[in-house]
Amino acid sequence: MPHERLVIIGGVAAGMSAATRARRLRPDLEITVLEKGADVSYGACGLPFYISGEVASADELVVYTPEYFREKRDIQVLLHHEVVEIEPGRKLVHALREKSQPVAIPYDKLIIATGGAPALSIPGVDLRGVFTCSDLAGAIRLRKFLDERHTRRAVVVGSGYIGLEVADAFAKRGLEVLLLGRSPHLLEGFAPEICVKAEEALTAHSVRVAKSSTVQSISASQKSGELHVHHSAGTETAEVIVLATGIQPQVALAESAGVRLGPTGAIAVDNRMQTSANSIYAAGDCVETRHLVTGKPVYFPLGTTANKQGRTAGENAAGGHATFDGIVGTLATEIFGLEIARTGLNADEARTAGFQAASVTIETRSHAKYLGGHPLTAVLIWDRSSGRLLGFQVASQEGAAKRVDAAAVALHAGMKVADLPNLDLSYAPPFAGVWEALLIAAKEALNKSRH
Amino acid sequence: MPHERLVIIGGVAAGMSAATRARRLRPDLEITVLEKGADVSYGACGLPFYISGEVASADELVVYTPEYFREKRDIQVLLHHEVVEIEPGRKLVHALREKSQPVAIPYDKLIIATGGAPALSIPGVDLRGVFTCSDLAGAIRLRKFLDERHTRRAVVVGSGYIGLEVADAFAKRGLEVLLLGRSPHLLEGFAPEICVKAEEALTAHSVRVAKSSTVQSISASQKSGELHVHHSAGTETAEVIVLATGIQPQVALAESAGVRLGPTGAIAVDNRMQTSANSIYAAGDCVETRHLVTGKPVYFPLGTTANKQGRTAGENAAGGHATFDGIVGTLATEIFGLEIARTGLNADEARTAGFQAASVTIETRSHAKYLGGHPLTAVLIWDRSSGRLLGFQVASQEGAAKRVDAAAVALHAGMKVADLPNLDLSYAPPFAGVWEALLIAAKEALNKSRH
Repeated sequence: MPHERLVIIGGVAAGMSAATRARRLRPDLEITVLEKGADVSYGACGLPFYISGEVASADELVVYTPEYFREKRDIQVLLHHEVVEIEPGRKLVHALREKSQPVAIPYDKLIIATGGAPALSIPGVDLRGVFTCSDLAGAIRLRKFLDERHTRRAVVVGSGYIGLEVADAFAKRGLEVLLLGRSPHLLEGFAPEICVKAEEALTAHSVRVAKSSTVQSISASQKSGELHVHHSAGTETAEVIVLATGIQPQVALAESAGVRLGPTGAIAVDNRMQTSANSIYAAGDCVETRHLVTGKPVYFPLGTTANKQGRTAGENAAGGHATFDGIVGTLATEIFGLEIARTGLNADEARTAGFQAASVTIETRSHAKYLGGHPLTAVLIWDRSSGRLLGFQVASQEGAAKRVDAAAVALHAGMKVADLPNLDLSYAPPFAGVWEALLIAAKEALNKSRH
Repeated sequence: MPHERLVIIGGVAAGMSAATRARRLRPDLEITVLEKGADVSYGACGLPFYISGEVASADELVVYTPEYFREKRDIQVLLHHEVVEIEPGRKLVHALREKSQPVAIPYDKLIIATGGAPALSIPGVDLRGVFTCSDLAGAIRLRKFLDERHTRRAVVVGSGYIGLEVADAFAKRGLEVLLLGRSPHLLEGFAPEICVKAEEALTAHSVRVAKSSTVQSISASQKSGELHVHHSAGTETAEVIVLATGIQPQVALAESAGVRLGPTGAIAVDNRMQTSANSIYAAGDCVETRHLVTGKPVYFPLGTTANKQGRTAGENAAGGHATFDGIVGTLATEIFGLEIARTGLNADEARTAGFQAASVTIETRSHAKYLGGHPLTAVLIWDRSSGRLLGFQVASQEGAAKRVDAAAVALHAGMKVADLPNLDLSYAPPFAGVWEALLIAAKEALNKSRH
């Protein structure tokens, strides 16, 4: 009897986690990963640090090479293999090798990990000097462009965390940066009190910020090659433009194979990462997941989630039983040394989800003032009707990200605000205050609730 | 009708938290704090940083002055008032003002916050040059001694976290330091893999470490004033000695008033911080508390806990209803830049408590290697029989303390190891790895459990 065959489409985060987990459980499985690009298993969240030059070589971002997977884990990695069709009836995957050579690969179990791709609907996105920051190959092209050409002015389109990270990277390279965002706040999804800290950090480092600006098109001067960004409040000229306007799930392959999409437009999966199709799993930036605070499907593409989902899909495709129930919306970033992190819902999201949302903002310090503790802003969001914790956000030059983790666990556990003030969190003067920000905010919320 | 009178014995952490909370809820209450020393409301955990000189002035450690409490919060603070008797029958407290003048103070509600005091049973503890590091006045005397005299050699007796912090402070001042510990590991309560990191940090900074050494006595040379520490492995000579051999609950007052003590020897309280005596509450380092992992009483004196207990006692003494259910054993310290933190039980404690304890140790990094992430050691302890998380410990030059907080919340929530690998914890390359240490350790534990 031939070995059972597991085929995985996509080899970045979810795909390689799936392959690794399946191999661990099943030494006998024949595992093939089809990757359309030239790289697998790299730290996509590190791309801005490669663009800034803080990470010298792209190789440093690569966690494992295809050779490593082949030799050490007996996982067949086929680069430059773009899958063009899934045939569930015959359990076949059709790919084009090096863009031209057709290959048909049979599977017993299939995992779709096609990821996400930039949402690009602006005329002019294909002009020379216009980039995205969504994969390693693109980041290498962008840095080469910056290294080889005289660039003085940059426009970053998009005011989500990726846009801010790219603006930070450009400013560190000495570029004059304009950040153009469509929404009235930077960092949509964060509380206004946190957004304002991010904006202060940007403007303190000479990044110009234009909010509520919709980009209509990009054009280029034929002679100079200068680029012009035409937006709702005028036109900006620059030598380089990065579009960071969000990520869309890559679902075309799945959809045409009859795999069901969910309400968010991403692939629908159950908590075993199984799709609607027999023997087909999906994981990573191409799937939607459940938001454990709202209980509803959400599209929230992140590397950490992709790895967990991939691991779950890999285990189940290998005949095991693993579950991934969902996320609580944790997200962290750093802009010019300011850590910004959130978990759960913000007040607007909570109201939209039907909660009687209230929020409280507190100011404290990252650690004891007498040892140089930094100012720290925290926002706690809760449901007045049930008393349940709904979200927590922190901005500080120190310790914001790991501080929201405690709140993330509290969200997973469905804790109420009244459960928080007595949580036994760590304290010592070099890295905390006697009352942690989460506890202070919870006490404030309870005081507010009494009235 | 006269105002109701709340009297609080002790004005450091628990006492002032109680007073503040009571005042907030009851503007009409007459609140008096009797403090035998010269200070209230200071950061006792900051004392080692004052001794090292990192904190220049003792005033910086004082959070609020007695004047502040009097003027801003209408709380009467009586310094140099040592309470010598509680008369529950007549609801009277008898104190000595300035060590001689008897004062009798009536109460309607009483809160005992007499704290803890160093456990000193070694002959010679009263010699000149022998100190403890347990209160502000003592730290001021110690630093004055170091500033004014020629001291070259120091011995620290005690290898708990306070002993290590004092050794760190002395080494930073340029002293030759010997750390003498009774137990075979430094930092009793920590896993051996974590203890060894602490010892490496000490020896890398030229602190000599002698474990399994019991101190028998201290003597002084009459002429030179040199001190000699006589211990089980020999005699050491030094100009200054600090005893950091632990803290004992100060229960004499409570005991002679008929207030019941618990099995740990500290005052027994319910989860409202009420003692066995009518109208008498107790909080802080003089009480025992419940360990929420074992369900059993424990004496675990810490400033954070004292503040929470004080707040609870204050609210209840003021006629409110607040509860403090217990702790999960969280503790954090920093030794020469190495953060060390724990929560829950270690494997030995877990076995003693009747669990089928297993533990796993992992090595990872505090954040992405390509951005200079530091090595990080983590130990996870769990119960094989129920799958429940029992403890988590971390040592790293970065982020150890706030990393155990996520595990602390998981302990409060009674989570199982199987609940951990999918926790939605924060990630970004400057401050985390894609898989947090807690998740890696949990995955390892689950892998181990399968066999």
